Amino acid sequence: MTATAMRHDARSPENLGALADQIAGFLAEGRTRTAAAALGGLAAPDWAEIIENIAAPLRIDALSLLAEHDQAEVLGHLRADVQDDLARAMAHDHLARLMSAMSHDERADLWKRLSPELRDALSPAMARAEREDMRRLSAYPEDTAGAVMTSDYATIRPDMLVGEALESLRVQARDAETIYTAYVVDARHRLLGVVSLRDLLVTPDAGRIERLMQAAPVACHATDDREDAARLIARYDLIALPVLDEAGRLVGIVTADDAMDVAEAEATEDFYKGSTIQPIEDSLAHSTLATLYRARIFWLVLLVFGNIFSGAGIAAFEDVIAAHMTLLFFLPLLIASGGNAGAQSATLTVRALATGDVRQSDFARLLLRELVVALGLGLTMAAAVSLIGWWRGGAEIALVVALAMVLIVLMGAVIGLALPFVLSRLGRDPATASGPLVTSIADVLGVLTYFGIAMILLDLG
Amino acid sequence: MTATAMRHDARSPENLGALADQIAGFLAEGRTRTAAAALGGLAAPDWAEIIENIAAPLRIDALSLLAEHDQAEVLGHLRADVQDDLARAMAHDHLARLMSAMSHDERADLWKRLSPELRDALSPAMARAEREDMRRLSAYPEDTAGAVMTSDYATIRPDMLVGEALESLRVQARDAETIYTAYVVDARHRLLGVVSLRDLLVTPDAGRIERLMQAAPVACHATDDREDAARLIARYDLIALPVLDEAGRLVGIVTADDAMDVAEAEATEDFYKGSTIQPIEDSLAHSTLATLYRARIFWLVLLVFGNIFSGAGIAAFEDVIAAHMTLLFFLPLLIASGGNAGAQSATLTVRALATGDVRQSDFARLLLRELVVALGLGLTMAAAVSLIGWWRGGAEIALVVALAMVLIVLMGAVIGLALPFVLSRLGRDPATASGPLVTSIADVLGVLTYFGIAMILLDLG
Repeated sequence: MTATAMRHDARSPENLGALADQIAGFLAEGRTRTAAAALGGLAAPDWAEIIENIAAPLRIDALSLLAEHDQAEVLGHLRADVQDDLARAMAHDHLARLMSAMSHDERADLWKRLSPELRDALSPAMARAEREDMRRLSAYPEDTAGAVMTSDYATIRPDMLVGEALESLRVQARDAETIYTAYVVDARHRLLGVVSLRDLLVTPDAGRIERLMQAAPVACHATDDREDAARLIARYDLIALPVLDEAGRLVGIVTADDAMDVAEAEATEDFYKGSTIQPIEDSLAHSTLATLYRARIFWLVLLVFGNIFSGAGIAAFEDVIAAHMTLLFFLPLLIASGGNAGAQSATLTVRALATGDVRQSDFARLLLRELVVALGLGLTMAAAVSLIGWWRGGAEIALVVALAMVLIVLMGAVIGLALPFVLSRLGRDPATASGPLVTSIADVLGVLTYFGIAMILLDLG
Repeated sequence: MTATAMRHDARSPENLGALADQIAGFLAEGRTRTAAAALGGLAAPDWAEIIENIAAPLRIDALSLLAEHDQAEVLGHLRADVQDDLARAMAHDHLARLMSAMSHDERADLWKRLSPELRDALSPAMARAEREDMRRLSAYPEDTAGAVMTSDYATIRPDMLVGEALESLRVQARDAETIYTAYVVDARHRLLGVVSLRDLLVTPDAGRIERLMQAAPVACHATDDREDAARLIARYDLIALPVLDEAGRLVGIVTADDAMDVAEAEATEDFYKGSTIQPIEDSLAHSTLATLYRARIFWLVLLVFGNIFSGAGIAAFEDVIAAHMTLLFFLPLLIASGGNAGAQSATLTVRALATGDVRQSDFARLLLRELVVALGLGLTMAAAVSLIGWWRGGAEIALVVALAMVLIVLMGAVIGLALPFVLSRLGRDPATASGPLVTSIADVLGVLTYFGIAMILLDLG
């Protein structure tokens, strides 16, 4: 079974859902042959989705429709909570065989989540090298390259001839995650270079690897951020990135498909931060309600207290407001505009810093550009709002709201631009400069600016 | 030159910037040999970055330090505006040779942007097949799989033996984007199946391709959304995805590294939409100020008018407010809370829809979950705000603000959840349900709810 077994039209979520119901029906009636036939030719990710859609008691039966090697592949594609359930329900020797056949990174993740009792029960049935490999891979802190790398890569020696290297890769092909990049290591497993299978194929068999290999290849350290590893893979269009330990020894590879998953997870995290949601481990659909509550409540309450300052600002101008109640009409519009302009510039800046499009050293130039753009935005919005001002309160009110609009938009935009840079300089994640945070700061300044201008122009004027 | 020539520590942006300055100095003094030596062993993306960092007049000199085949590769990695400048400045026969050697997708993108005059001038120097290939590739609408695919893939015939297929791939290796997946096509170029190079290597030479290949592989159509193509590559861990025309003929492939770029571009677009910024073609650092202004002004002005409703809401309650000016203190805090809770649920929903984590059919279940979570959030925030209410205005005010808080948070959360679903059902992009839009709607409802409750409890009570 590979990932390329059916035309994708047949694999829509709805079809897979319907298929899952059908399979569950067959299994409940004990018609395993019919169930297996209905699933023929499906790719592992689709199998995994079907098993996730089947009621928990029938899942082992569904998985058992497959040959063991394929079971291992499907197990690796399952959601973590489904994997855990299956692992607890499965016979120990069965689970041990599947884990021996799984991708090294996927089995290490599973191993990490197993209870100590289950680990002890499995240990006798697994080879010592496998247990050590799992322990090593699961030892790296989350969000590091080490935590997403896998150890089933293909290595060759620098003194091999091309023909020997090809033969060696043929032998390693069964177990290695990829053989399209071969890693050249010395006797102490230090990474000397890489060779692509493409180069091996077009080079005469008698060539020597050390002359063909790319020396000093792009690599990262196991303790590097997984996001940086993914970025290197994207930048250099790599199939896999070698991961080194402190001594320059090869300890694993991060594959391009894992890098895509990392990039998606990091983007999701940044989306969440941009709306003051703390990272959640699982998907939205499968998180518990308590998890969702905890991920959201902290900033919401913090911002409640932050917004007290805006309230205090308004309270400070109660006399001005009481004398010109029309001013209240424009309050939501003005403070929202500052927040909106600020959210825009915060998003532009956070994203540009995250993708490497701009750097800390670009701050001054970007600030200048932002001032020009924000002035343009503010003037346009002031024109719009002054018309409404004229209609509701005459020339003086129009002047106050137009002036306030320009200043408020400028301030919002500058805060939105500057905050991510400040956070980044302080060693914090720039993405924390979320829309709501920028909006709250812009709100306070907006209230003070608006009523301040009103007081000067309306009362003293 | 390949992508694996230098340890990445040496490739930090700062180092590349310094190197660019050094090279520019050498070139200005005519010391081309020294410049070439300083750049030895650099990967194409790093070369591209250095050339972008060099003043425009020296860029052709810098590029010319390389062999022509490498120039073509570096040209493909350059930013669009730098490519365009170089193309205009270069001798026609030089440019034609480079374009013949470029990746097919990259040269089609460049071709598309060339002026009609330049295209006419280049045509005689390029093969007819190349011109047709460029025209074909550049004909697909933006954001489709056809617009990101490339036509330099490797094909084999179903009646080949494994040994013959390997020999054929060896020959195609020079020009094909990848040979790690070979596409099996019939005489009319319809896609019959795919074979991985890994499978070819471990199968005896006398096996026949049609028996080895995976029939009916995962594929997409040229007119499919590029985002869907990227998602298939991520889901099935593909090296490349075959792209078919209406008749099932193979017209191109989308490679995994292009899929990573697509995923990043789509995430950026969604970030922008989430803050009411319209998509911009270039990077933030290289967009013109007019582009940035245009991308931002539309929604800002629209939201100004949207916020008039909040102002009108306040104006409608002027009597209540005049009688209880303390109420104003809590106004920013309450309406911001509704907007913040709404922005959170909008972000969770938009992202979950974008990654395929939830679907249209999950709406009812998610709404129920959101109501429970939002009730929890609202009660917590009400507890916080009622303390402040008590302190500022006594028990009655505390009751009003607490009650308003619960309702406002609930409404904001429901709008944030529902709006993306509604937009998606209407065939619009759910990401348009941005924080600022949700906030504006929540603001109006917040004003009405708050002062409505106050009127009932304070004046009639």
